[in-house]
Amino acid sequence: MARIVMKFGGTSVGDCDRIKNVARRVKAEVDRGNEVAVVVSAMSGVTNQLVDYCKQIAPLHDAREYDVVVSTGEQVTIGLLAMALQELGVPARSWTGWQIPIETDDAHGKARIEGIAVEGLERAMKDGQVAVVAGFQGIGPENRITTLGRGGSDTSAVALAAALKADRCDIYTDVDGVYTTDPRIVAKARKLDKITYEEMLELASLGAKVLQTRSVEMAMKYRVRVQVLSSFVDAPGTLVCDEDEIVEKELVSGIAYSRDEAKITLVKVDDRPGVAAAIFGPLTDANINVDMIVQNVSEDGTHTDLTFTVAKSDLDRAVKVLSEKTDLKYDRLVPDSTVVKISVIGMGMRSHAGVAQKMFKTLADKSINILLISTSEIKVSVLIADEYAELALRALHSAYGLDTK
Amino acid sequence: MARIVMKFGGTSVGDCDRIKNVARRVKAEVDRGNEVAVVVSAMSGVTNQLVDYCKQIAPLHDAREYDVVVSTGEQVTIGLLAMALQELGVPARSWTGWQIPIETDDAHGKARIEGIAVEGLERAMKDGQVAVVAGFQGIGPENRITTLGRGGSDTSAVALAAALKADRCDIYTDVDGVYTTDPRIVAKARKLDKITYEEMLELASLGAKVLQTRSVEMAMKYRVRVQVLSSFVDAPGTLVCDEDEIVEKELVSGIAYSRDEAKITLVKVDDRPGVAAAIFGPLTDANINVDMIVQNVSEDGTHTDLTFTVAKSDLDRAVKVLSEKTDLKYDRLVPDSTVVKISVIGMGMRSHAGVAQKMFKTLADKSINILLISTSEIKVSVLIADEYAELALRALHSAYGLDTK
Repeated sequence: MARIVMKFGGTSVGDCDRIKNVARRVKAEVDRGNEVAVVVSAMSGVTNQLVDYCKQIAPLHDAREYDVVVSTGEQVTIGLLAMALQELGVPARSWTGWQIPIETDDAHGKARIEGIAVEGLERAMKDGQVAVVAGFQGIGPENRITTLGRGGSDTSAVALAAALKADRCDIYTDVDGVYTTDPRIVAKARKLDKITYEEMLELASLGAKVLQTRSVEMAMKYRVRVQVLSSFVDAPGTLVCDEDEIVEKELVSGIAYSRDEAKITLVKVDDRPGVAAAIFGPLTDANINVDMIVQNVSEDGTHTDLTFTVAKSDLDRAVKVLSEKTDLKYDRLVPDSTVVKISVIGMGMRSHAGVAQKMFKTLADKSINILLISTSEIKVSVLIADEYAELALRALHSAYGLDTK
Repeated sequence: MARIVMKFGGTSVGDCDRIKNVARRVKAEVDRGNEVAVVVSAMSGVTNQLVDYCKQIAPLHDAREYDVVVSTGEQVTIGLLAMALQELGVPARSWTGWQIPIETDDAHGKARIEGIAVEGLERAMKDGQVAVVAGFQGIGPENRITTLGRGGSDTSAVALAAALKADRCDIYTDVDGVYTTDPRIVAKARKLDKITYEEMLELASLGAKVLQTRSVEMAMKYRVRVQVLSSFVDAPGTLVCDEDEIVEKELVSGIAYSRDEAKITLVKVDDRPGVAAAIFGPLTDANINVDMIVQNVSEDGTHTDLTFTVAKSDLDRAVKVLSEKTDLKYDRLVPDSTVVKISVIGMGMRSHAGVAQKMFKTLADKSINILLISTSEIKVSVLIADEYAELALRALHSAYGLDTK
């Protein structure tokens, strides 16, 4: 007997028929003799409708009241799924965030889970009752409803799996696993059987939308084995797990891309101590994250070019902030949003040289110019012109031997 | 300074614009220097949608899970109204049933309020914060969400007014008060300035849909002054209050009608002791309420005719139950659903003879045959053929001097 947390997203519970389908998936797990807790999102579209109501009432609204409104979406789903399970003869009951309780801080709209009291759930599960838990929500220190931010149901599921010391946390979604790269672009993309937390974390941060970054961080911290699989196809998915669990390690596990990047170049900035702080300080104050940064070697010893990337949605604001800095001396400010970030990810990089070199050579062979480079222990990212995105992805996917045979 | 509970139904909070309108009505009350708690229903249509989901999942569903689902409607409205008030500069916060808490029994789907802990609310209201409270919901003895049954928000409002010792409970609705009779049928119907609890209770039970019967019972028990008024028109409504508060008492306050009646006649039943029990026992067992009953004087000393009414929706079931009673001897069973119950209501009846006589004479003058009669201290009801309903209402309304001048 194992203890399993299953999580179903908005598409999987999009209408009553799909909720009945989810109930059948849960029943199959119960029939295998497992103890099961299910975490669900709101029916697809519902949260957007509720958010829209809030905006109609007041563009800038109280985050505490926002949480009261949007948390109802998940509450509807847990009641319906519990009924659907009972209809199949499976004992079940629903649990809201405050009933368990899932305790969070008071950062309404983007709260962090601080603790989950699982005694009640465990008692019910031991009695053979499936616990149907509302994702995305908790209860703050002042007995008020909180939400974890968009996509928070993944985090709820992993946190619950950690608290329940579950053997596995199965995240059911509309894709059937984690791929070596986006199969919509690279036809030869391969589904991975297993991937390490570290690699998944890079993939999630670098644009793969399969799992929410925070949920992967939490899985890594508490060593929760997470499986990503399809709610519509009955097949094993991808297991996100500890490195030790993976026997055949790949040099490179996946190639991610993100179109959510924009580049800013400041031409002929004064090359003096403190200039970087003078540029990035105001951006930080304006809550704009800077990702990749390159400063050219100064040619004349007094001036240099500085290039960095921000999220595409922050580009206009970043340009405005820098233009208004009258004490910042430079020749020109060149914004460019026609760029894409391509990242090669793999644990193997730590011990194998030449991974980055292969990337640069592969792109060079296709005459693709690299605008920026950044690296970490297990990934290399490059910024290139966005028109080369598909070509680069396919070439790299082949070069690292990831293509399906 | 007064303490006021305001209640707005589903039509009054039907969309975001209407919620903003409600916020303005609440602000006006706050601007008059009053302490205000607001009780709201779900946006119109929302509860029906949620109930429909439950039916789609399982025709016979767990009432506890039903409550989890349908209680979300009011939760959305309290969040939105609190935001709308804040947007107008009025401090406000939302309160769910479990946050207050509004304690109920565990009769899920039709729970009864057992107590309301108002300390938190009172503290907030004294600090100048409007308390926006979810109607229709509470929390049961096992920390699970309960609902009070359809129309329960009126009951929530009156119970809250009683617990808060409010000076008045204003029920805002889509009509502007309580009328002497249905103005859609009798053009000369008059809005009443005041009406006693007892009369309102009879009116509510006898078909006037302005207030839920249970809320009037509760108002009478705790002597809560209830005003019924329009959420769209800014004018005083009808005050439901103690008899002592009404200076000019009317002999008759109103005339109600109900089309929700059906008549059953058992022809030539054995006239022996115990026969009534033999007939009504099985109906009670089948949870069918019998309203009016008449047993004719036996002509031959051995047989009699027995006539009674049930709710129209119970007619088929009642006929079936009686047909299956093989030990019950009678000639014929005659069901008739083409009837209407007309009731004349007034506290004045207790001290004035002739009210019933005037009713019978007025109907006789119009050649309307009376099928059944029942009376209480403050009302006379008759059953007539439903084709005469409008004629009878208009004739009685004139006869008792209720017409607008």
